[in-house]
Amino acid sequence: MITDSPVSYFKFSDLKSFAEQVFLKIGCNTDDAQLATSVLLKADLRGIDSHGLARLSGYVRLWQKNRINTQPFLKIIHETPSTATLDADSALGLISAPHAMKIAIKKANNCGSGWVAVKNSNHFGIGSYHALLASEQNMIGFAITNASPLVAPTFSAERLLGTNPLCWAFPAGKYPPIVIDMATSTAANGKLEIAQRLNKPIPLGWVQDKMGQVTADAHALKNGGALLPLGSSREMGSHKGFGLSAVVDLLSGVLSGANYGPWVPPFVAFLDPLTPPVGDGIGHFVGALRVDAFRPMEEFICHIDQWIDRFKSAKRIDSEQAIIIPGEPEFACETERNSTGIPLVEAVIVDLKKLGEELGISTDFLCLY
Amino acid sequence: MITDSPVSYFKFSDLKSFAEQVFLKIGCNTDDAQLATSVLLKADLRGIDSHGLARLSGYVRLWQKNRINTQPFLKIIHETPSTATLDADSALGLISAPHAMKIAIKKANNCGSGWVAVKNSNHFGIGSYHALLASEQNMIGFAITNASPLVAPTFSAERLLGTNPLCWAFPAGKYPPIVIDMATSTAANGKLEIAQRLNKPIPLGWVQDKMGQVTADAHALKNGGALLPLGSSREMGSHKGFGLSAVVDLLSGVLSGANYGPWVPPFVAFLDPLTPPVGDGIGHFVGALRVDAFRPMEEFICHIDQWIDRFKSAKRIDSEQAIIIPGEPEFACETERNSTGIPLVEAVIVDLKKLGEELGISTDFLCLY
Repeated sequence: MITDSPVSYFKFSDLKSFAEQVFLKIGCNTDDAQLATSVLLKADLRGIDSHGLARLSGYVRLWQKNRINTQPFLKIIHETPSTATLDADSALGLISAPHAMKIAIKKANNCGSGWVAVKNSNHFGIGSYHALLASEQNMIGFAITNASPLVAPTFSAERLLGTNPLCWAFPAGKYPPIVIDMATSTAANGKLEIAQRLNKPIPLGWVQDKMGQVTADAHALKNGGALLPLGSSREMGSHKGFGLSAVVDLLSGVLSGANYGPWVPPFVAFLDPLTPPVGDGIGHFVGALRVDAFRPMEEFICHIDQWIDRFKSAKRIDSEQAIIIPGEPEFACETERNSTGIPLVEAVIVDLKKLGEELGISTDFLCLY
Repeated sequence: MITDSPVSYFKFSDLKSFAEQVFLKIGCNTDDAQLATSVLLKADLRGIDSHGLARLSGYVRLWQKNRINTQPFLKIIHETPSTATLDADSALGLISAPHAMKIAIKKANNCGSGWVAVKNSNHFGIGSYHALLASEQNMIGFAITNASPLVAPTFSAERLLGTNPLCWAFPAGKYPPIVIDMATSTAANGKLEIAQRLNKPIPLGWVQDKMGQVTADAHALKNGGALLPLGSSREMGSHKGFGLSAVVDLLSGVLSGANYGPWVPPFVAFLDPLTPPVGDGIGHFVGALRVDAFRPMEEFICHIDQWIDRFKSAKRIDSEQAIIIPGEPEFACETERNSTGIPLVEAVIVDLKKLGEELGISTDFLCLY
């Protein structure tokens, strides 16, 4: 396993206050600054460190390039009783995706399910934040987004798809919700960045070089290579990973009216989007299915718990290695970090200090540990 | 690539007539016999040979064991404007799944989307048959089913999940629909059966033995081993394949009120289901999203075609190997087999002859070639 060693732990309240000030500084109103912070910090709490404060400066850079509108007017441009299309007016995805999920939940309350496609948006953080909004309401939540092109389709040497994550959240009873939140590539970019920082080789099957040959070089992606779809090779089913990634792109991009494939605007501000675009911004697609639109909630909960019990007690290959229910490690991490605070690696601390200095926000709390 | 050599080609009309007679013989009415045949033969036409006539005798064996009701009363037991739960009364899945999709399509026509969970059903053939019913109506189709336990979760030596396929179908304009129809395991059982017949080793990453160790032995599954989830190993993302399989099981089984996990009744009639069951029969979940509930159909079609154009023209790794759009090979196969007829391997021919003899249906057409 390739893992960074965290350097220091910080108080949740300090990080929250800092991030909120950053979002206020770039023009968000108080509600939006709190919401965006809450989505970002949920990633840090759940141990998805690549999608938390590590990205904060990235959003600021996009705002500086006028690619993010911090005072957006979110507008439903198409609607039926169970569906809607939302024009996010170049908002932070951290704002537009929870907004879209609220619409989906309202529609599900009215007619059993709600599905909202979002265009003209930006990076939405972790899908599980949005999907969990539904599971908290006794609904099954769904959240997907397309993303900057980094993944090559099977048989191609070209990056045409993002890591295009998909997330499902199912409410449970005595257990935390079951949450499947996964990139549709074999490895997420965050893991690669860690290997690059440590200058370590990566397992064969994560990345191909610019000629399309599988490589252990963590830097190959930066040098014109690509991430591989889940499955890694044709023989091991990479066409399935490609297919899943295509589903995410088609629902998030083509159905909503956003960009898709290689036209999805890059997250990094130093790369310009392709012109002319084929749609508006990046796209998301979220959904909520009311459990009691299918069967009574108490029955469902009882069987979900039984499902979890059965899988947790499955025969192990290695007696020391438990079977992991999807979402279980993230929930455990959240519980732990709520008491220990949040670990940040040196590179992120340096980045946040620089950001604070630039925007005139104190980062003294980063020096106290 | 491990492939059987087809032995002989048969006329579509002969095979259709034969299968219809079989379904009539076991008690289906004319409409149901035609529908079940049409679902089965769609698999043979599309080149998914494991799910076509090769399975016909399997359905008969289940009927003989009173596990399939050929005169079912399909009943909606729970309903909202955009959702329903269908009790299939032990019907053939070949009948209940298209029925469920018709309900979903009707709901989508009324309120933008329709989602139907099915319990008390049986094997539904290929998901793409059902999902394509939606795409033919300018909707995005979704069809999943749980299945006999053959797949081990990551870190487990126990079979707890089926190959749990998932299918999405997207209508296109100048191209055939984009169809993602995939088992959530690395390899489908059909491929393994071929390797067993040929007595060939299989690629490492498809199967583990009964101790949970990866093996090249195609017979390991029969000897207490298990298929591996898409991703094959933890390092290559098998927890993602496990997560996808779990989604299919939770929506098809737990949400509908069907069995789930190891309780899903085996397709082979010589294995009895676990008792007591945790639900009714096996479960499916189908959905339809009206495209024009999100954006005008003509805009969508134009962009889907552009998506396909862009991916087809992507830079190739090997100049001889084109990038494959999901569903493209199956559509090409269907076109070809509509003129050449349908190839059957010797084992299937023998099986059909035996079935015909047993049920008193002529199989002379199987000897003419």
